[in-house]
Amino acid sequence: MQDWSLTLDKLLDHAARWHGGREIVTRSVEGPVVRSTYADIHRRAKQVSHALLEAGVKPGDRVATMGWNSDRHLEAWYGAIGIGAVLHTLNPRLFPEQIVYIANHAGDEVLLADPACAPLLAEILPQCPTIRQVVFLSEAAPPTPFPALAYEAWIAGRPADTPWGGFDENAAAGLCYTSGTTGNPKGVLYGHRSNYLHAMMTLQPDALNLSARDTVLLIVPMYHANAWGVMYSAPMVGAKLVLPGQKLDGASLHELIEAEGVTYSAGVPTIWQMLLAHLKATKGKLTTLQRVTVGGSACPESIFRTLRDDYGVDVIHGWGMTETSPLATVSVPSPAIAGRSFEDQLPYKLKQGRLLCNLDLKLVDDAGRRLPHDGRTFGRLMIKGPTIASGYFRAEGGEVLDDEGFFDTGDVSTIDAEGYMQITDRAKDVIKSGGEWISSIDVENIAVAHPKAALCAVIGVVHPKWDERPVLLVQLKPGEQAGKQEFLDFLDGKIARWWMPDDVLFVDEIPLGATGKIDKKRLREGLTGYELPFDPNLRR
Amino acid sequence: MQDWSLTLDKLLDHAARWHGGREIVTRSVEGPVVRSTYADIHRRAKQVSHALLEAGVKPGDRVATMGWNSDRHLEAWYGAIGIGAVLHTLNPRLFPEQIVYIANHAGDEVLLADPACAPLLAEILPQCPTIRQVVFLSEAAPPTPFPALAYEAWIAGRPADTPWGGFDENAAAGLCYTSGTTGNPKGVLYGHRSNYLHAMMTLQPDALNLSARDTVLLIVPMYHANAWGVMYSAPMVGAKLVLPGQKLDGASLHELIEAEGVTYSAGVPTIWQMLLAHLKATKGKLTTLQRVTVGGSACPESIFRTLRDDYGVDVIHGWGMTETSPLATVSVPSPAIAGRSFEDQLPYKLKQGRLLCNLDLKLVDDAGRRLPHDGRTFGRLMIKGPTIASGYFRAEGGEVLDDEGFFDTGDVSTIDAEGYMQITDRAKDVIKSGGEWISSIDVENIAVAHPKAALCAVIGVVHPKWDERPVLLVQLKPGEQAGKQEFLDFLDGKIARWWMPDDVLFVDEIPLGATGKIDKKRLREGLTGYELPFDPNLRR
Repeated sequence: MQDWSLTLDKLLDHAARWHGGREIVTRSVEGPVVRSTYADIHRRAKQVSHALLEAGVKPGDRVATMGWNSDRHLEAWYGAIGIGAVLHTLNPRLFPEQIVYIANHAGDEVLLADPACAPLLAEILPQCPTIRQVVFLSEAAPPTPFPALAYEAWIAGRPADTPWGGFDENAAAGLCYTSGTTGNPKGVLYGHRSNYLHAMMTLQPDALNLSARDTVLLIVPMYHANAWGVMYSAPMVGAKLVLPGQKLDGASLHELIEAEGVTYSAGVPTIWQMLLAHLKATKGKLTTLQRVTVGGSACPESIFRTLRDDYGVDVIHGWGMTETSPLATVSVPSPAIAGRSFEDQLPYKLKQGRLLCNLDLKLVDDAGRRLPHDGRTFGRLMIKGPTIASGYFRAEGGEVLDDEGFFDTGDVSTIDAEGYMQITDRAKDVIKSGGEWISSIDVENIAVAHPKAALCAVIGVVHPKWDERPVLLVQLKPGEQAGKQEFLDFLDGKIARWWMPDDVLFVDEIPLGATGKIDKKRLREGLTGYELPFDPNLRR
Repeated sequence: MQDWSLTLDKLLDHAARWHGGREIVTRSVEGPVVRSTYADIHRRAKQVSHALLEAGVKPGDRVATMGWNSDRHLEAWYGAIGIGAVLHTLNPRLFPEQIVYIANHAGDEVLLADPACAPLLAEILPQCPTIRQVVFLSEAAPPTPFPALAYEAWIAGRPADTPWGGFDENAAAGLCYTSGTTGNPKGVLYGHRSNYLHAMMTLQPDALNLSARDTVLLIVPMYHANAWGVMYSAPMVGAKLVLPGQKLDGASLHELIEAEGVTYSAGVPTIWQMLLAHLKATKGKLTTLQRVTVGGSACPESIFRTLRDDYGVDVIHGWGMTETSPLATVSVPSPAIAGRSFEDQLPYKLKQGRLLCNLDLKLVDDAGRRLPHDGRTFGRLMIKGPTIASGYFRAEGGEVLDDEGFFDTGDVSTIDAEGYMQITDRAKDVIKSGGEWISSIDVENIAVAHPKAALCAVIGVVHPKWDERPVLLVQLKPGEQAGKQEFLDFLDGKIARWWMPDDVLFVDEIPLGATGKIDKKRLREGLTGYELPFDPNLRR
């Protein structure tokens, strides 16, 4: 068979040649919606390549971007990877000190940024000595205290025939840092081959089910988790691509969906909540949208129901992480489930889904022993495959694979007999009591249904006999008063007896992190010195 | 990213682990329909591997099969490729002397054959010295004049933990010979990697659109054109597989489709014609079948219409050849076509379709210059990609790629602005007149509509001025009589003037080849010595 390396430049070549007239629509940083095609993107990406080579960028060098989803961002992306440079997507929403750390750790050399990032760059660039050229992804560069170029002038008049590819398919293509809830952010280095295979895996009906006939609204930011691979899967099939820029509010998204005939989209639950609120308020309709993949965190049941019942949109759970390229499981119906009613399918749709081809999953206990796939036993979720990280950039974090080559996701989950995986907790939050595990999230979800509760958190506290025991922390609704027993009675019968918290603490405020999740690290710090009321005879 | 070679053994591992209970249903050589699962197939394939290793089979050795589509054939298939042997599918329908040539050329060492092949084997085995072991894919071996084993006894009691894989993904996995209309049959050697990529390419909605929910009836013989890759794509997604054995008549297929809930199938037009005849005669229904891919030869419009209108089944043209793994184009709707009525889509559905991702096509003239994709200009169809042959086994036929790395399909076709490719002729049958090409098939298809015509053929005859000119050969219906001018008048206005045949010859019989196609080689031989009525002033 023919030699044919799996390098990603071929995907845009293919799109330009076979789907050249298919549109890329962007809500531009300048404001208006602008229209482009795969042929245009290809031509201009080649011009970017020429400019990067002239700037001295060599294979393996890091070219950073900092911007929202746009046509120019896509051109910069392929312009960099086409010549073997590594496209590093910086997240402009991180704290400036995190961005400085990441840019220095990555050793970024050229930075292509949205003009809205100019004030942020003025703050961080003095601390980023490796960045030697800044290009603003716009017509004109904003006034800045540092030297910078404007993208359009930078690429204007350049030849569009810079050769692409010709390097090894295992060469690095992309770099994306995890947010790093503990320790410093760590970089995941994607290869041409891994991204290529990931794109092929996501096209199939049991994954994102993408075809040339789809119009894809990419809400997931291009700097987040490899943009769910859509930068590769859309050109691979010639799907129309709609890039919403910085405006992710319900009204702006709804306008784009209807105006462009969007059939498919992907995003976190919050996005759909905002869109639904807008639709309800404006009595809006979704006339073309067929299906959405929801990931990032568990999607509330109400979103599944409302999008289906009121708007005819199928919601499909997906799961993955930066380290898994990212898509790994999708909650499409198994053969046994497919014929059932929506109500009977819903418990499965609420799980994170079934494994894509080419991957393997296992659940293990603390000793690394495999646990059964019975839908009840939960263990550490380990994953293996060609699209899964084998380590972090510059070997941060050292060895991360077990002796069977599996990567530890840091999640705790169950897998049922139909193969549906469900995340039950983060491994660091699960409570290890007498050799068995208690899901903090399961107990929280039940406790927070108490009418007096505003927020609930469950954390493990050291226990002299059982290693750890759960403690429930409750933030009451304003003006409410309650006692411990009230909450224990509320939980009674709803959870296993040995899952019952050993104590209930009322706190003024349960701290939330940047993404709106409960900040358990700060909660634990707040409990330093706290000791459980120890009853040696108590065995729940 | 993790190391993870694309070896095909992983596909059955995955199916056994994640779709282990999904059924494989076979109409067995013994008669009854038998049921198995991916877990069963995996276990027994491992036993085959053990038996093959004991028989001295080493990586790269050829293990041949000769049989119909069955569970045992599938087990033998994976049993061989799992240990790095090359699975060579012999076609029992070839002439014995062809099979002898192929088996000797391949150097087959072990042969697993259906018991129905025993008489054929008795004839050919004395001339196949490399085959040192014969195993019949059955409970008991039939009586034979040569030593042979029975499959069930051969694998019984063997361990099911023989290690698989561990070799390079570019290692050979399969060997399939082309029928060879000219010269000796030539072998196409598939790699693990090429078959793996092909399977991933075929899953997507723009190809075969296969999911875990599909029940696939594989009518295409496993010995034909890499079985359209279904041996790999079905386990990759955990589709239920229905293997029809030797009974491909309408009644037998209909019974299987309805009993097993078949949703998808693939086969040549003749199969669907037989099925439709059966359905019409018995007033049968198709209650589960959703779509069929038709390839091998152009599918008549009546099959598209009848399967859709009377049975609700979508017919999708596919094109490929042994040398292209095989699937290369599929006639799924382009974005521009998708919204149209069936009648408006039909002209596109009748073409061979749009290119799969990862492949490239070009049309060239005799000098190798690229021709436009305007839907009218036709040229030699050249193809490139990781699933396309780079040459033949043992370098038969020498260099087959052009200087851009494209493989010459031997077909002549057009490509339209929407990317739909249509085969217009075989390159050896196209008539080259004054530097331009005339499609013999186009003229034949129009001429045969003449009410007096039974069969028509158009072949090129040497012409002193225009190089070649077309001559129409007509086999009249029994009892009919006609003159040349009658046929020329019939063609007038329906084809370009310069396509008009320079002569019309009436023959008693137009010879047909083994597959029912007109045998133009014999027609040309029959015209040896014939000279065109040369009119130097004639320029059509």
